[in-house]
Amino acid sequence: MAEWEKNVRKAVPYIPGEQPKESGIIKLNTNENPYPPSPAVKEALEELSHRDLRLYPDPDASELVKAIADEYELKPEEVFVGVGSDDVLSVAFQTFFNSQEPILFPEITYSFYDVWADIYKIPYEAIPLNKDLTIDPEDYTLDNGGIVIANPNAPTGIYLERNAIESILKANPGSVVIIDEAYIDFGGQSCLPLIKKYDNLLVVQTFSKSRSMAGMRIGFAMGNASLIKFMNDVKFSVNSYTMNRAAIAAGTAAAKDTAYYKSTCAKIIRTRERVKNALIRLGFEFPDSRTNFLFVKHKTMEAKTIFEELKKRGIYVRYWDKPIIKDYLRITVGTSSDMQKLLDALAEIIG
Amino acid sequence: MAEWEKNVRKAVPYIPGEQPKESGIIKLNTNENPYPPSPAVKEALEELSHRDLRLYPDPDASELVKAIADEYELKPEEVFVGVGSDDVLSVAFQTFFNSQEPILFPEITYSFYDVWADIYKIPYEAIPLNKDLTIDPEDYTLDNGGIVIANPNAPTGIYLERNAIESILKANPGSVVIIDEAYIDFGGQSCLPLIKKYDNLLVVQTFSKSRSMAGMRIGFAMGNASLIKFMNDVKFSVNSYTMNRAAIAAGTAAAKDTAYYKSTCAKIIRTRERVKNALIRLGFEFPDSRTNFLFVKHKTMEAKTIFEELKKRGIYVRYWDKPIIKDYLRITVGTSSDMQKLLDALAEIIG
Repeated sequence: MAEWEKNVRKAVPYIPGEQPKESGIIKLNTNENPYPPSPAVKEALEELSHRDLRLYPDPDASELVKAIADEYELKPEEVFVGVGSDDVLSVAFQTFFNSQEPILFPEITYSFYDVWADIYKIPYEAIPLNKDLTIDPEDYTLDNGGIVIANPNAPTGIYLERNAIESILKANPGSVVIIDEAYIDFGGQSCLPLIKKYDNLLVVQTFSKSRSMAGMRIGFAMGNASLIKFMNDVKFSVNSYTMNRAAIAAGTAAAKDTAYYKSTCAKIIRTRERVKNALIRLGFEFPDSRTNFLFVKHKTMEAKTIFEELKKRGIYVRYWDKPIIKDYLRITVGTSSDMQKLLDALAEIIG
Repeated sequence: MAEWEKNVRKAVPYIPGEQPKESGIIKLNTNENPYPPSPAVKEALEELSHRDLRLYPDPDASELVKAIADEYELKPEEVFVGVGSDDVLSVAFQTFFNSQEPILFPEITYSFYDVWADIYKIPYEAIPLNKDLTIDPEDYTLDNGGIVIANPNAPTGIYLERNAIESILKANPGSVVIIDEAYIDFGGQSCLPLIKKYDNLLVVQTFSKSRSMAGMRIGFAMGNASLIKFMNDVKFSVNSYTMNRAAIAAGTAAAKDTAYYKSTCAKIIRTRERVKNALIRLGFEFPDSRTNFLFVKHKTMEAKTIFEELKKRGIYVRYWDKPIIKDYLRITVGTSSDMQKLLDALAEIIG
């Protein structure tokens, strides 16, 4: 070991889903939207000035912040933007979770939460789910240094009603409660209205899923102006200019085109419901999903086998070789035609 | 104070230079390049697929990493990329500076270093410069938890010869030494060749200055594969996908067009040398600059007065109301015509 290594922070990184570089793959493994972003995004990028790239972007990304604020009927001071919701959540963890008490999150959830807790040296307690994989709000009344809940939860896809979220907020006036709503636009109801009543609620959303813009890296948080100011102070202590000119322009255009993303979400929901029925006929079981993915387990065949057989056929889904969830596959809802190919392949594999 | 506020990290953010939104301003305050990026960048952005924005970018940004590695005759494992050199430096601070001993950097330097040290709770000691604003390498032999030196230094513009950097590396085998070469392409010699000899040397550069791409947010670090791996582990513990598709495409094109950025740098250097002579005639003094800016002090007129008078005339330069440097203005080298307007305005102000 080199002498300087003693002062190195040795991190165990998050491992994202595979991003295969070959073409022709049916990619149902990272919950991307099968539809392209709004045509307004195309126009905005065409209008982006190549000459102006020499200039720094607006450090406040005001145009994008304002477009999001307008869309959700908020003031710009109530909106924070970042490089995908991962950036937003990571800044929120750094800003709000500085207690000696553990933060709380479900044992099965977005697997970045414990990675952030580790890197920022935040103590945490992972709370077991109920047997049916649902979250019990009663479990979130322990002493804590903060709470983070993905709603709908990942990778289960299960949605928690707004009154359950409210009961968690009520029980925890001393902690910031982060609700990670990456998948909320696929059939859930956002708890956003609660930010007017609870000044400790931060709602995080993303352009990567419902707005078809994973490739542009745009996430945002909504909460009372004081929470947002604390986050911006931390952000400006790390990097003044996180959102590049392309992301600001494309994000602003997407934020203004509500009708477009609502229509693609509706299509995905319709496909999901149809696929649910077909999967039941193939012998799969799954919790009810309000997201753009399904978390499925077959009655007889092992998840790992199905995962590998699908991969051989050029269809990528997500599988984790981990306790509790190793019997499940997470399958992104793609286009109707992609899903038909998936169902055909599954019929063949299961036989 | 709300009850949850007790666990908030309260940061004192870095304040970037003003980014005025009016047009018609001559902007010489944030060291942007006055020339547009390579025409290859324009083409790359035109070819960017709007449809593919629905997909996550390559988390490793392999194309961009490879283009940088090729340009500097390195292996891809020796290159780290981030959202501007601020992101790269901030990841490097987080990764390498975890000692109880203070890190060392010059008292007058890039003003983000102490901000990162504060946010990451890194003890630090700011080492005074010599009277002539130069750095004395002998000062960097104290016990320390790491060293960071901007070369050329900011905002002085003074360049430290490679053998001076090497003497610092020799004296500090137990620390990672970061050399921040944001301005190296404007007349200095990179210490990059030293990474083969010193495994604790990290060289950080950016596309924001010499490659005219501040608006796209691309920075990079070069060092031995072990240093780069530690940084990537930390990066993947915070955000898997930091570089969006536009940045990867534009950056790759820019990295391949060496001839273009060398020619614009040569133009800026010629303008700088001409402006130096004109400023001397106007009664200014300054350390020799090897950057795209000049750090100037007038023999009789106060910096603050000149700053304000220039602003009235629509010319923005940078001024800090801080000890030691409050007699100076930092003036970015713009186009020949912008600099003529600056010189005319200065002649009028100084009278």
